Formats: sequence, structure tokens, C-alpha cells
Amino acid sequence: MVRTRPLKVALLGCGVVGSQVARLMTTHAEDLAARIGAPLELAGVAVRRPDRVRAGIDPALVTTDAEGLVTRDDVDVVVEMIGGIEPARGLIEAAFKNGAGVVTANKALLAQDGPALHAIAAEHGADLYYEAAVAGAIPLLRPLRESLAGDTVNRVLGIVNGTTNFILDRMESSGAGYGEALDEATALGYAEADPTADVEGFDAAAKAAILAGIAFHTRVRLDDVHRQGITEVTAADIASARRMGCTVKLLAICERAGDGRSVTARVHPAMIPLSHPLASVKGAYNAVFVEADSAGQLMFYGPGAGGAPTASAVLGDLVAVCRNKLGGGRGPGESAYTQLPVSPMGDVVTRYHISLDVADKPGVLAQCALVFADHGVSIDTVRQSGKDGEASLVVVTHRAPDAALTATVAALRELDTVHDVASIMRVEGE
Amino acid sequence: MVRTRPLKVALLGCGVVGSQVARLMTTHAEDLAARIGAPLELAGVAVRRPDRVRAGIDPALVTTDAEGLVTRDDVDVVVEMIGGIEPARGLIEAAFKNGAGVVTANKALLAQDGPALHAIAAEHGADLYYEAAVAGAIPLLRPLRESLAGDTVNRVLGIVNGTTNFILDRMESSGAGYGEALDEATALGYAEADPTADVEGFDAAAKAAILAGIAFHTRVRLDDVHRQGITEVTAADIASARRMGCTVKLLAICERAGDGRSVTARVHPAMIPLSHPLASVKGAYNAVFVEADSAGQLMFYGPGAGGAPTASAVLGDLVAVCRNKLGGGRGPGESAYTQLPVSPMGDVVTRYHISLDVADKPGVLAQCALVFADHGVSIDTVRQSGKDGEASLVVVTHRAPDAALTATVAALRELDTVHDVASIMRVEGE
Repeated sequence: MVRTRPLKVALLGCGVVGSQVARLMTTHAEDLAARIGAPLELAGVAVRRPDRVRAGIDPALVTTDAEGLVTRDDVDVVVEMIGGIEPARGLIEAAFKNGAGVVTANKALLAQDGPALHAIAAEHGADLYYEAAVAGAIPLLRPLRESLAGDTVNRVLGIVNGTTNFILDRMESSGAGYGEALDEATALGYAEADPTADVEGFDAAAKAAILAGIAFHTRVRLDDVHRQGITEVTAADIASARRMGCTVKLLAICERAGDGRSVTARVHPAMIPLSHPLASVKGAYNAVFVEADSAGQLMFYGPGAGGAPTASAVLGDLVAVCRNKLGGGRGPGESAYTQLPVSPMGDVVTRYHISLDVADKPGVLAQCALVFADHGVSIDTVRQSGKDGEASLVVVTHRAPDAALTATVAALRELDTVHDVASIMRVEGE
Repeated sequence: MVRTRPLKVALLGCGVVGSQVARLMTTHAEDLAARIGAPLELAGVAVRRPDRVRAGIDPALVTTDAEGLVTRDDVDVVVEMIGGIEPARGLIEAAFKNGAGVVTANKALLAQDGPALHAIAAEHGADLYYEAAVAGAIPLLRPLRESLAGDTVNRVLGIVNGTTNFILDRMESSGAGYGEALDEATALGYAEADPTADVEGFDAAAKAAILAGIAFHTRVRLDDVHRQGITEVTAADIASARRMGCTVKLLAICERAGDGRSVTARVHPAMIPLSHPLASVKGAYNAVFVEADSAGQLMFYGPGAGGAPTASAVLGDLVAVCRNKLGGGRGPGESAYTQLPVSPMGDVVTRYHISLDVADKPGVLAQCALVFADHGVSIDTVRQSGKDGEASLVVVTHRAPDAALTATVAALRELDTVHDVASIMRVEGE
């Protein structure tokens, strides 16, 4: 049964994703109406540059007055595709106060103000959906928020940034250095002109904050996420990973810690075994593992970005908000009821892969091994090779608190026989 | 905010999954209450044998009067864990008429009567959730019903039966025949005493019917699903698959056909390349690919069965139904609005791997090749080997309608020089 009066949608921003959403609303109007139970109508499109030609969008709908659009009486749902903190936050709040539901892909805003926005939405009986904010088209937030609502999630681990995955992939397959692979990614449109948000791990860290908050029902801020990008990953690191049957991926890892009484969230490059399913995630694809008490280990895989995949996630949310509007209900809110604190990186238990340039003389290995032992760090493997009076020592540790591993590295640097700590990388995925 | 008056849950059946659900409702009471917004209370447990000891369940709650339990005034949600068609269907209908929401894992019932049950649920404003019916703990139905509600799904392809996957795995890794591998599966508890539902593909076919209905928003009955089990898969088939860089899996495949104007659903063993992600899905795990217009290719992976994983899916649904109860809304219904017809197997476009025992004399290959050509079937590869006056011919075709491939095989059987069609298997996953 499809009612006649349409649900009105205000679109904020009409870039790559926004224009796809508008297009699909038109081309798939009948399917959307059947699935929602009422037709959709584009109430208006707020943009900064109204003079740009926008194929398929009625120019009469285009406005620069976003505030006026979201506070219109007849708007049922606001689709926020502007990104960034302001004016997006103010417009979303205005939409809630106007009783409209909101669909957004704004990870930066959600990572910073998710709980506050959820509270305002709840206060006004409005919906807030944002599947597209993490891992593009991959249904991940809805499974975490809803499918696993009766389970206890212990770990979320995955590749959530396609740009860095593409760059690391290129370094792996071609032996190129970081700079060369970045140039290639930029030329092919996989990296933006200013790639900082991706390569420094800010994008992945925002996603980790959102994932950790939802998975553990607590509040995790962007600043709570330990963040390390890929700019210092070298061709030598990747070659070294390969020698130990591993590859290098930028991982987002959210875990329960301290017997479940706290949580940790971090983003950093890590070596993972080639046999691990994440090792074969190529190019701009994303993949996320979720481990839960009862469900066991689940994996979600798919395109992590791009206009069409992101629009798919936005439209799925739009259908949900509209259905809720018609049915008089609301989607699941977000509650940080567990109030689990976020532990610092030093408490995270992990493994290190450490490359040292050392003096090529007897006793150096024993001296280094003693430093590890002094810090309570157990060594898994050591590989030693020498040339021209210099030797290199590659040590892989067993699992230990990150603080102990950091202290070990600091102590190694103090040794006269250690000329350089050539690289340090965590090892995950076992 | 958690209200004080509890939501009351009637549990029908207390077997492996039901008892886990009851246990988790107790051990996770606080978390569930926080996530729902109200505490849960077990109103009663209907069982056939009330004298059996059930750890952790108050004997006063146990009853044999399932009908009386589901029609109690105070019951908010019914969790149906009995399975099979009756009395499950009658009890679910009674629950809807009583205004109660229903959570079930009953794939047989959903495959047979899903649309009718959804209609009754809608009529009474009640919820029907059944994530656990397909692929255990893997969030798959919710993503299809909700996350992809704004997209067009073109294909669902996956491993949805753990028992057969375990058996095929054992045949692959040990070279054992089907019977031996089945015995092992039975001894280890992976196969039931009567394994028919699994090994003949009935279980997977019910899941395919449910998946196709949800994915394409149409009605697909169990009888509409082409079904072939694994009982005739031989060690030779698996060895032959291996020689062409493939492995054998029991696949459930639902596709749009005929330019999107019809759908097909089928379950059969198929050879897939070892490089395909489904090839590495081992043991009792399930994995499902979903291909959609905008989202692209998604994969969902996890434990496909077992008490705890299934209980996780049931509890996720229970939280959803309870939230909807409190919020006054309803979850997404199911609509077969597209009314796409189901095409017969003959219309499915696939590839065949055919092993023939032929006379070892000149001209046989040419004669066989002519039969393929006569039926419009193009040959991809041929491998010929001879011994003792007999030769074997292994042909892999290009893609063609199944009807043409079947007719080709029938015509080959008529040739004097073809002594036996040793095996036929479809090739998928490219």
C-alpha cells in the first residue's frame, strides 16, 4: 500500500554522493515508494555554488539557503552531504528541532559529536542514521547497532580507508616507495590533492571512534584514538613483512581491554600474515572483522568509498527513516550506557617487529636480548644478517603491553652497539 | 532511560538454541535492559517434555501448553524455536493475533509461508523477525531488508549450509569419498542422524527461497528453487576440480534473469576457482556474496550454525522487536511488490564441466565437439587422456543456458562412442 502524499527530502550538498542520491531518487522512484510505502519528493537542494549545472536536478529546487531549507515545515528528512563540522552540525540540529530525521555520511562530525547529536535527536523524537560514514556501502553500523544488539562485541578490526589501502597495495606489488605510490594514487583519483586526512590516519581514526562507540556502547572521542598514518612506512618495511610471510595494512582496531572494564581504539600500520583474510583485501576495498561472545567471528567486505556505493548506504538509511516516519516509530538510538573508559595506547597488548642496525661484533644479540628481558618482553624470532661491519637485527616479539614495547625500544636506542632503530611496526591478525 | 515494567517473552522450545536464548536473557539482563530501554522477563517456556531438567530455567515457568502461553494477555514477544511447519505456524499466527511480536529461526516455515505470515503480522501491527533462519549469526537478512533497501540487488551467491560444506571440505582435504566424509561429519556432530535435509540441499533451498524473496522483493517458494544435493559428488569430481584450479562447494544462487524481468533460485554443487573468496570458506562457516547496482559486491562471512551464534541472531531480533514495542513502531515488513516471476532452471545461464568416458579412437573429439556446436554451446577447454582403449574427455563450456547444456549432455549420451557421462558439474564464481 503506497500512500499518495509524498515524504519530502531536503538534500544538503550536491557533490559526488549528493548528486548520486538525487539521481537515484528519480530513477528508482517507484521502487523506493513501494519499499517505503509513500513516494519521495526532493524538497530542495542546498548548495554553495547555485550557478553550477547539475544534471537531472530541477534548477528551481536549488538554493543557497540551507538553514531555510531544513527548517521548512514540510521537510520530513534531511540528507546531509556537506561534511565537516560546521555548518553541518548546526543544520542537523535545526533539522531535529524541526522534527525531521537526518541521514548523513559525516564521519568527522559523528566522531566528534555523535552522542550529543543522538541526544538531541532523541529529545525531538527524530532519527539519526549514518551507515555511509564508515566503510561506504558495506552494511556495518546497522549490523553492529541492531543485529548484534543482543551480543557482546569484543573486537572490531579492519581496513576502513581505501586510499591508504591502495597506496600500501601499490608499494607491495611494485616495490615503490611511499611517495611514488602516493603520486600514483593521486593521479588515479584514489587520493585527494591534500591527502592528509587519509594518509595520516585521521579518516580511519574518526571511523574507529564511531565503531568503538557503537560496538561497546560507550563514548569514544576522536582524541581517544591512538593514530599513526602510513607516511613513514618504507619499501624496506614492506619487504621485511614479506620475508616473514606478512603484508602491511593500515588497521583500525577497537578492543575491550582490562577484563572488559575499558576499551581501546587505535589506527596504525601493522604487519598481518598473508594467510589472514584481510591480507587479500586489495585497492579501495574495505573489510572489517567483528568478534562477539556468541556470534563468534564475522567479516564484512565491500567497496569502502565512491559515489555509487556511498549513495547506496545513504538511500538505505533514507528508506529506514521514511519507514519510521510513516510507522510512527524511531530507529535505534545510541546509548553510551556502559560508560567504559578508554585506555591509553600503552595498555594495548600487541606485538612488535623491530629492525635494528647494530655493530657487527659478538655479544650484540645477547646485549639486545637482555634489554627485552629487562622489560618483560618475550622474543618470538630474531633474524641477524651482517655486511661491511654493520649488522641488522630483526626481532619479532611475543604479545606484550605497548608501553613495555615502547620502553624496550627506548632502551635499545641507548645502547652504543645499536646504531639505529630502522623501523618499528606492530604485528596483528593472529 | 530504562523503564521498570518488563517486556514479557514467551519462549517456544528449549533445545540447543532456545536454552541459550534463555540463559543469555538471564546472564545479560542488564545489558539487554539498557539497550532496549526496559527489562526483559521470561513469561514462560513451552516444551514437549516438561520433566527434562533445564539448567537455569525456573521450573515454574515450564509448560506444555504453548497455545495458552502465546495467547496470554501479558506476553509482548514470542520466540519460536520449535521449527517445522506445525504447530509453529499456528502458534505464530496466534501470537500475531494477540498483538505479540515474533522472533523465529524457522527457515522451513518462512520459505513456505513467509509472505502469508508477513501479511498477518502487518494486519495486527506486529513484528516478524528471523535473522537466525539464514546463515546463523551472520547479519544477512537485516542488511538485505534494510541496508540495501535503496539499492537494486542483482545476485546473492553463497555457502549457506555448514554440514555439506564440512563434508565437501573433508572430501577435498582427505580424498575421502562422500560416504566416508558423511560418516565423519556424523561422528563429529556436524551432520544429524538423518542428514537428508542437509545433504539433499533442502535446508539450503529453503534459505535460497527466503534470500531470493527478500533480495528481489518478490515471492519465491521452496518448490521454485532448483535443488541438487551433494550425495552424488565423487572423489573423482573433486580431483577433477582440483586439476582445473577449482574446488567444489554447495552453492545457493539467486539471480535476476531475463533483463531483470524474472528471477532464478537454485542450489547445487559447483566448481569454483581456488582464487575465489568462497573457496577458502572452511568447515561449518557460511559466506554470502551480494551484488547490487550501486553498492557493488559485498561479502558477509561467519559461523553458519551452532547454539551460541544462532542465539546471538535471535537476541538481536528480540532487542529490535522490544525496541519497536516500546517506541510504538514496527520493523520493516516484507513486500512482494515486484511480483517478478521465477524462471525455470533451463533459463539459468551457467557453465558445465563434463567428464565423458569415450572410445579411444580418432574422430571422437570432433564428433563430440559437433554436438556442443549443434546446441549452440561454446567450448572453453577440452582435456583428453587415454588408457587401455578407453579415453576420457573433460570438457568445460563457456556460459550457456542450462537447457542447452542439458540437451547437449543428452545428445552426447546417444553417441556410440560415448560410453558414459561420468560426471556433470556446473562451474561458477568467475
